[in-house]
Amino acid sequence: MLHRKMMTVEQARQLILRHSQVGPSKRVQSEASLDHVIARDCTAPSPIPGFDRSPYDGYAVRAADTTQASRSAPVQLQEVETWPAGYWSDHSLQAQTCIRIMTGAPIPDGADAVVPLEQVQHDPQLQTIQVFRPLSPGDNVSRKGEDIAVEQTVLRAGHVIGAGEIAVLAALGLSHVDIIQPPIIGIVATGTELIDPYADKALRAPLPYGSLYDSNSIMLQARIARWGAQSIRFPILSDQEPDIYEKLTHCLQQCDILVTTGGASVGDFDRIPAWLQSIKAQVLFNKVNMRPGSVTTAALTRDRQWVFGLSGNPSACYVGFELFVRPLIQAWLTQPTAPATVQAVLLHDIAKSSPVHRYVRARLRYCAVRNNWVVQTSGLDKSGALSSLLNCNALLHLPPRPLHQPPLSAGSFVEVILTEPGSYVSPSAST
Amino acid sequence: MLHRKMMTVEQARQLILRHSQVGPSKRVQSEASLDHVIARDCTAPSPIPGFDRSPYDGYAVRAADTTQASRSAPVQLQEVETWPAGYWSDHSLQAQTCIRIMTGAPIPDGADAVVPLEQVQHDPQLQTIQVFRPLSPGDNVSRKGEDIAVEQTVLRAGHVIGAGEIAVLAALGLSHVDIIQPPIIGIVATGTELIDPYADKALRAPLPYGSLYDSNSIMLQARIARWGAQSIRFPILSDQEPDIYEKLTHCLQQCDILVTTGGASVGDFDRIPAWLQSIKAQVLFNKVNMRPGSVTTAALTRDRQWVFGLSGNPSACYVGFELFVRPLIQAWLTQPTAPATVQAVLLHDIAKSSPVHRYVRARLRYCAVRNNWVVQTSGLDKSGALSSLLNCNALLHLPPRPLHQPPLSAGSFVEVILTEPGSYVSPSAST
Repeated sequence: MLHRKMMTVEQARQLILRHSQVGPSKRVQSEASLDHVIARDCTAPSPIPGFDRSPYDGYAVRAADTTQASRSAPVQLQEVETWPAGYWSDHSLQAQTCIRIMTGAPIPDGADAVVPLEQVQHDPQLQTIQVFRPLSPGDNVSRKGEDIAVEQTVLRAGHVIGAGEIAVLAALGLSHVDIIQPPIIGIVATGTELIDPYADKALRAPLPYGSLYDSNSIMLQARIARWGAQSIRFPILSDQEPDIYEKLTHCLQQCDILVTTGGASVGDFDRIPAWLQSIKAQVLFNKVNMRPGSVTTAALTRDRQWVFGLSGNPSACYVGFELFVRPLIQAWLTQPTAPATVQAVLLHDIAKSSPVHRYVRARLRYCAVRNNWVVQTSGLDKSGALSSLLNCNALLHLPPRPLHQPPLSAGSFVEVILTEPGSYVSPSAST
Repeated sequence: MLHRKMMTVEQARQLILRHSQVGPSKRVQSEASLDHVIARDCTAPSPIPGFDRSPYDGYAVRAADTTQASRSAPVQLQEVETWPAGYWSDHSLQAQTCIRIMTGAPIPDGADAVVPLEQVQHDPQLQTIQVFRPLSPGDNVSRKGEDIAVEQTVLRAGHVIGAGEIAVLAALGLSHVDIIQPPIIGIVATGTELIDPYADKALRAPLPYGSLYDSNSIMLQARIARWGAQSIRFPILSDQEPDIYEKLTHCLQQCDILVTTGGASVGDFDRIPAWLQSIKAQVLFNKVNMRPGSVTTAALTRDRQWVFGLSGNPSACYVGFELFVRPLIQAWLTQPTAPATVQAVLLHDIAKSSPVHRYVRARLRYCAVRNNWVVQTSGLDKSGALSSLLNCNALLHLPPRPLHQPPLSAGSFVEVILTEPGSYVSPSAST
């Protein structure tokens, strides 16, 4: 029988990180780079603004012409041209004249200030304006490079691209950008009892007695997307499949990380351990001191591909993924690998004690009224339970607690791992 | 000249919500439903588990056979069959016998409890096991429907689908699900000075003097994706375009909401107001008492399509989108429409005062050490500035403050609107 050496969660995670690698870079159209990670520093090839320009609809003037202007003795200037944005001429502005200029248009040669439309009186007949206050050179002029200087580093390697970053790349004319190519993660569910829920209806309904729909692969697909990686969901493998080793090896060839669910335990038909042995993979760990998911396996092939053997139990599969596969994805993408955690107020007692670390599916939210995070478990706490994945947006981490201790009581602070980062502050919670 | 009636931000938002509509539903493959909104309640067509099953690798037994079992006087049972998961036979378990059973396999007829593998002593020669403690009926049996009962409502209309919800849909064999079809939002940048940053290189470089790359459309595309809507980016329209009205109308026909940037102000070439008049759209508002973005326009066509005229200034465009278009998307998707906000500690003084509400691009994070949210502005606070969109994940809301007041000082609490919900708790912030 397979030798299993028990490891702590932290030891297992450190072992993964020690062998982790950073992903290769890839050039993509900037437009498609949202939520990706910049692979190398980006500098501005040109300044923004690219030229001195007007931030308002108004009149370009020579500030020197306005030094005597006042409400009672306005200065009159002759309008000689109109410049829409995108237009310019080589007209050089003469004394006592002005150019009507729209937001974004270049400052004409000779002009050094802009008076906004609302601040002048315009005589359309005479084509003149009256200016009621003196301007200083530079007033209402957006200077070339004042926003972003040429050669300035605008994005650092490792930065995650949001809407603002995409806008800046576009403004600089950087139509392409180098991102870190996310890992491709293959998913294989193993189990003779499993039916693909998306197979042709004829193949999947009615469900034969003793069978069930595979839900772990689907859940993993969604989790992989959440953390910015790509997934391939491979066909389900039966435990009795004669070519199971060849098939697993074939799946592995198409991805950077292969995640299997089921078949990793101590049952007669758990074939993952033997397959890993057959391909001479280095098993980093195959037993972790936690619940659920204690039989989680991580292995590294000789080609530095990863294999994770997760439990077939939905919650154990979820926990194994979050604790071990997620940090590997983060390391690949050069992001912080520790889980994001908060200390939250527990909303109810937890009676169950456990000699090992437990990770319980939970619902976390930020409560503005209490100025605190609050958490509750999200349903039936059995490792086979699916319903507790509904509404689950966090994992409650319960350190070992001896048997027959008093329950962990409502109001205690507990550590919570965030798994759905966008879901904690709701409009209602903030009032 | 166009009449502009000033409105408060809240009045403008309420006006939008009063006219808002909920989107139509659409049937999609469940696998593709991540982050979408369920259109109607989903009930379980079958129970989970679908049959009484074993949660462990072990032996199915008759509890009555084990009543006398103890460490010193174990009960011996004859192993008669092996059931992998997915397998069953119509064998009915007789007294003093057991069936070797794998995790997930159905409980055989006649059996009413399971002893885990680790708790028995197995004699492979004799095909017997020894049981060392009494079991009660139901021990280690996952009961049919204990996780999800048949006809139970598993997802409520309006619920956002996460990984757990997708897993439950899969487990129930619900290969398709009705979601609310997100609105299709068209984007048109207007401005003669604008160049598409993704156009063929020959068309876009070198940038002619007086021109600039369109970045607002690209930013809006990313914001629209963030809030779960779909976007179509239309070609840039020149202000001088003779067919501009026809072209805008043609764009409008392809979407539910059309967002224009630029051309909404008081300049000579601002054509959006006149176009709205020509199609007899009902202008809900065209001036809002805020900065930046005071000239934001919202209008409703006679076919109940929406048009937003946002400023061409990057920050005004961002603010106008977040304050007015986002709530409309949320209403369409039946989600809470108020912005998610927190009270955060300001990390620096803000000297600038303003007679109107100001929305300043900012960087917000949750600081575990202080057990508080902390915020700082994210760069140059000029409405034309792009660099302050970098790192921006929130909008600092500053209520009106009379001129020449002392600065808003570091340490004050300020209201902050969250715009990048996933970005506030980082692993480092939690230590």
